[in-house]
Amino acid sequence: MSDTVDLARALTELRAKTPLVQCLTNIVVANWTANVLLAAGAAPAMVDNAAEASMFAGIAGGVLINTGTPYAETAEAMREAVRGAAKSGTPWVLDPVAFGLPFRSEIARDVLALGGPAIIRGNASEIMGLAGVEASGRGVDAGDPVEAALAAARELAGKHGCVVAVSGPVDHITDGRRTVTVANGHDWMTKVTGVGCSLGALMAAFAAVAEPLDAAVAATALLCVAADRAADGAPAPGSFAEALIDHLFLLTPDELAASARLGHA
Amino acid sequence: MSDTVDLARALTELRAKTPLVQCLTNIVVANWTANVLLAAGAAPAMVDNAAEASMFAGIAGGVLINTGTPYAETAEAMREAVRGAAKSGTPWVLDPVAFGLPFRSEIARDVLALGGPAIIRGNASEIMGLAGVEASGRGVDAGDPVEAALAAARELAGKHGCVVAVSGPVDHITDGRRTVTVANGHDWMTKVTGVGCSLGALMAAFAAVAEPLDAAVAATALLCVAADRAADGAPAPGSFAEALIDHLFLLTPDELAASARLGHA
Amino acid sequence: MSDTVDLARALTELRAKTPLVQCLTNIVVANWTANVLLAAGAAPAMVDNAAEASMFAGIAGGVLINTGTPYAETAEAMREAVRGAAKSGTPWVLDPVAFGLPFRSEIARDVLALGGPAIIRGNASEIMGLAGVEASGRGVDAGDPVEAALAAARELAGKHGCVVAVSGPVDHITDGRRTVTVANGHDWMTKVTGVGCSLGALMAAFAAVAEPLDAAVAATALLCVAADRAADGAPAPGSFAEALIDHLFLLTPDELAASARLGHA
Repeated sequence: MSDTVDLARALTELRAKTPLVQCLTNIVVANWTANVLLAAGAAPAMVDNAAEASMFAGIAGGVLINTGTPYAETAEAMREAVRGAAKSGTPWVLDPVAFGLPFRSEIARDVLALGGPAIIRGNASEIMGLAGVEASGRGVDAGDPVEAALAAARELAGKHGCVVAVSGPVDHITDGRRTVTVANGHDWMTKVTGVGCSLGALMAAFAAVAEPLDAAVAATALLCVAADRAADGAPAPGSFAEALIDHLFLLTPDELAASARLGHA
Repeated sequence: MSDTVDLARALTELRAKTPLVQCLTNIVVANWTANVLLAAGAAPAMVDNAAEASMFAGIAGGVLINTGTPYAETAEAMREAVRGAAKSGTPWVLDPVAFGLPFRSEIARDVLALGGPAIIRGNASEIMGLAGVEASGRGVDAGDPVEAALAAARELAGKHGCVVAVSGPVDHITDGRRTVTVANGHDWMTKVTGVGCSLGALMAAFAAVAEPLDAAVAATALLCVAADRAADGAPAPGSFAEALIDHLFLLTPDELAASARLGHA
Repeated sequence: MSDTVDLARALTELRAKTPLVQCLTNIVVANWTANVLLAAGAAPAMVDNAAEASMFAGIAGGVLINTGTPYAETAEAMREAVRGAAKSGTPWVLDPVAFGLPFRSEIARDVLALGGPAIIRGNASEIMGLAGVEASGRGVDAGDPVEAALAAARELAGKHGCVVAVSGPVDHITDGRRTVTVANGHDWMTKVTGVGCSLGALMAAFAAVAEPLDAAVAATALLCVAADRAADGAPAPGSFAEALIDHLFLLTPDELAASARLGHA
């Protein structure tokens, strides 16, 4: 990427290519995630059984590994999907939801040992936990400010040769050297379950059509700008959630580029 | 059935009898499917564990087998449910989502070997795949036009003594001899995850109160006419999804009959 | 508790403390349940694998066990969660969905043998079934009027030293000696999947900040008053569901106290 991210081009590419995104995600957000991907212009496929996960990763344009509700069988499918992605060169995204709890932490470490992700995304606690820095986690709630996690994010990016995105009031996205911030978004994004999880899926979608740093920034900007618009006129999180899907669908590439508030950190 | 399908009567019967529909479906669409069934007038029950699936199929009015996200345990439950349905004479519907992927293809073949379904529904790729005709599948996306799948649908219907429904811009429903088309519906039905999956569930609901061909046509017409109405006034797929549930609830039997555009092929 | 339940205080406490609610629930309602908890002011965490369930129950403010779609692995997780809750003194709620079906009935009996729940909630059939009284169950539909189940509820409350809540047109909540009724609510609550299931989750949330009888009454009143408001102006269950989430978020403690129609039975 150049110094700036061409958001309009990334979204145009996404909608032109409608990449197939294999999501191995949690039971809470599978429906929401699929609808976010469809509205944005991608094609979701939740192939999360161990028998099909590896071969499907060779067909998919991007793969999401989200550890929200892991089970023995889906954990094995996650390992298989990463093996398949590594073999075929398919970019994959790790969203280590509630990292720190033992079973999912083991899964996250396992998949990172099997192949290099394109992008790791999480809240500050998750990113600090994954980097081995002490964090205060309480399930999916972030207990640490984004800025405090930035050093951990840069270290993690360098170690795995990937992009690391830290969600928060201002999102920070780094490849270890450059750090892009996205200042859009609304507090109600934390009042609808799965908004963060769907951001990981959008990153996997954009990773099929753009370089990892551009992909993570474009996904974040798309979701946050759509959220800004959805919050205008919505009285509460129920209406907001529906409007968010609408605006993901309605937002044009030029509108995205004009409304995104990108910066550097 | 006679040459025409009495849509008003089918919907009246459905709402009078509120059939219990056992859904063994995927984690992405379970919530949506249950809400579609409730709005239409049926009673959903997602009994998808191996210990209860067979006995529950004897209580249910209809059973849905959907292979969207199969796991070892739910795959066994699908086999058990079909065994129970075959034993008790409960009509069941097969929706072979993403047929062609190995694990689910085996499940689809297994359940077809255990009993005769009332209805098989899928997109063109899935139906062609199940019939053994080469198709271009890419997850849940249909790569083949509906018309091209019609020969495969007729062959499949003859082989299994059932009705086969092929979803597309115009839906085709055949018992091998007669073919009914439904020309309602809106493109946004493909932009909301699970709309096709919920069609399979509606077919299982109507199969509890009508013959299979009538049931498949009535389910398709109900969903597509409700979608026509939902798309009027909805700006995008998020609003459309909510309005679709509303219109499934609000549509009267007479309105359904008046608005459905049935034909023969 | 005193003779009256201080609803305003309970909701104020909930929002001040945002208790973490561990939900081991079914695949149909996990998303809806999480959104209900978020809108009300609590923090959902669906930790339902056997490796993490027990330790997480020690972190959570309340635990929900809902038997809607049990599998071997999640059933074991439910036992582990109750073991963890019993050890740490975390209040937990049992929602024995479709009690009477064999696998889930065994799970419900198992967890009751492992520890004392704070609250048991269900429809009349489920409560009568759990109490060993003959009931007519048909999946999740209640076949018995609430009043008929009240004797069973009182017996169950006495046996397990807990509160028992029976859902219906008028909800009945008893600790075996006192019985509080909640006369709010709307028929469309039965036309949206998971509304009853989310009531169990809300009870687990309030149980983190109030005594069990107050918690069960406050959760019921909150959900039913929000439903009353949502039904005003919503044409059908699709719109109603979204408005219900909005009103759970918008309802103030004072409005809740003013609108709830509590009584004694």
